[in-house]
Amino acid sequence: MEGEGVQPPDENLENGSRPRFKWKKVLRLVVSGIKAAGLLLCVVYVCLQFSSSPAKDSPIQRLRAPVTGCEGGRLFIGTSKNEYETMEVQNNSVIINCDGLYLIHLKGSFFQEVKINLHFRKDRSPIFVPMLNNGQRVVFTVVTSLAFKDEVYLTVNASDTLCEHLQINDGELIIVQLTPNGYCAPERPYSSTVNQVPL
Amino acid sequence: MEGEGVQPPDENLENGSRPRFKWKKVLRLVVSGIKAAGLLLCVVYVCLQFSSSPAKDSPIQRLRAPVTGCEGGRLFIGTSKNEYETMEVQNNSVIINCDGLYLIHLKGSFFQEVKINLHFRKDRSPIFVPMLNNGQRVVFTVVTSLAFKDEVYLTVNASDTLCEHLQINDGELIIVQLTPNGYCAPERPYSSTVNQVPL
Amino acid sequence: MEGEGVQPPDENLENGSRPRFKWKKVLRLVVSGIKAAGLLLCVVYVCLQFSSSPAKDSPIQRLRAPVTGCEGGRLFIGTSKNEYETMEVQNNSVIINCDGLYLIHLKGSFFQEVKINLHFRKDRSPIFVPMLNNGQRVVFTVVTSLAFKDEVYLTVNASDTLCEHLQINDGELIIVQLTPNGYCAPERPYSSTVNQVPL
Repeated sequence: MEGEGVQPPDENLENGSRPRFKWKKVLRLVVSGIKAAGLLLCVVYVCLQFSSSPAKDSPIQRLRAPVTGCEGGRLFIGTSKNEYETMEVQNNSVIINCDGLYLIHLKGSFFQEVKINLHFRKDRSPIFVPMLNNGQRVVFTVVTSLAFKDEVYLTVNASDTLCEHLQINDGELIIVQLTPNGYCAPERPYSSTVNQVPL
Repeated sequence: MEGEGVQPPDENLENGSRPRFKWKKVLRLVVSGIKAAGLLLCVVYVCLQFSSSPAKDSPIQRLRAPVTGCEGGRLFIGTSKNEYETMEVQNNSVIINCDGLYLIHLKGSFFQEVKINLHFRKDRSPIFVPMLNNGQRVVFTVVTSLAFKDEVYLTVNASDTLCEHLQINDGELIIVQLTPNGYCAPERPYSSTVNQVPL
Repeated sequence: MEGEGVQPPDENLENGSRPRFKWKKVLRLVVSGIKAAGLLLCVVYVCLQFSSSPAKDSPIQRLRAPVTGCEGGRLFIGTSKNEYETMEVQNNSVIINCDGLYLIHLKGSFFQEVKINLHFRKDRSPIFVPMLNNGQRVVFTVVTSLAFKDEVYLTVNASDTLCEHLQINDGELIIVQLTPNGYCAPERPYSSTVNQVPL
């Protein structure tokens, strides 16, 4: 019977190659240990990437809009649907959604002497815009700190001309955020009151 | 004979520890299932990363060049081999390769009254540069939208002096892109007509 | 005895399903090969990510500080603890740590005519700041190249008033780096000589 004559298969191995078989077992253990560690490393890394996926940088806030006239005492800021539009214009005011330092540039030529003030925050005095060519031309660049809820608009007055009769040539307003990645208010549905003007 | 006395090895197990053996088999299945899922997750993630490797941000387009004289009615724009050079100068024109909003800054002092115009696009009127100190000094900053194929150059004229006789002190032109990651034309081999000037 | 009647378990398989068994073995080899390759790919990718983890972009260097008076012939630059402070002010000088192109903006109103010069490097002539409103108002924007060890400060003099008696309204200095990721000196411990002023 087997018990006396025929040894179970494993026993046959052990006599002749017991150390080889042990070494093989250790090797197999080490390999699967390494494989498990490698897999664990990868899975942990992937999970970390997903959980800490870098907050998508908010796009640089910017606006480039034609300034084409005067309406209700304010310069009329048109908007043009091109890739520079990441800021909204409402009632000739540029709505600020993200905190940061902004570059504001205004240029244009008038047919009469005008005085322009740049407003951006209720409790702050406006910036009086220096003019050129006896008050008939503006090429003005300023840097200021703006924050969510600010609204940038430009009031204009001419001593002898009604606002609505003011004519402007080559008028343009550019606002660019210089320090992106500050606080940004959640985006609101784009309202329809913007002044659609072909650029 | 075996049939009566000696059972095959597996049968020996089953009687005494059949549930334990089944449980081991299920465990082994679950473990290898988890390992396979983990591996699949990692491989899919790695492939996604490779396939969607974020387009390398194009470097911010910028130029800082000395303005040292006048040539052919244009201010002579030298170029200096330093890390600010990502834009090419040809025939005293700065070649624009990437769309975006740019800050252009010009400064310098002349020995006579001059008038400078900033040109950047064929079908657009140039920007008349306001001067200081009776037209003998310029410290001018403007923001404008430039696009591929635009060329920035500065025409200068003085009522009583030939262009080539104009002398400029501390002249410098700086152009910096404020909104990188717009469209960029594929890079062309750098041509040799630029004006090499030690800064 | 076994030799004649009872074959070892493997032998039983071979006769009837030898090709099936071989095919299974090949399949198992292929699967573990794929698993090993997949695991290797992931581990190599993860290691590459760790070893080449993108140098953390240095934050855009910027300062927005109130300018509130005059001290030792220099405009007094206060500092306010808000998120715009990534630059240090010492002895009314803004310390430059990172190379790059910077936008410098100064605004303010005085009660007398003043002359202001913008200094930033020992061996460079200062920039004479153009004034408005008969020298009593400044709204000035300039772009210049600054480097580690530069110090930005503003000297001011008034023909008939002592520096310490000069009064300024709505004075503000803003400095913003336009080309981040240039060379930055290692950060030094923040010194205590800065002028703490509530903004």
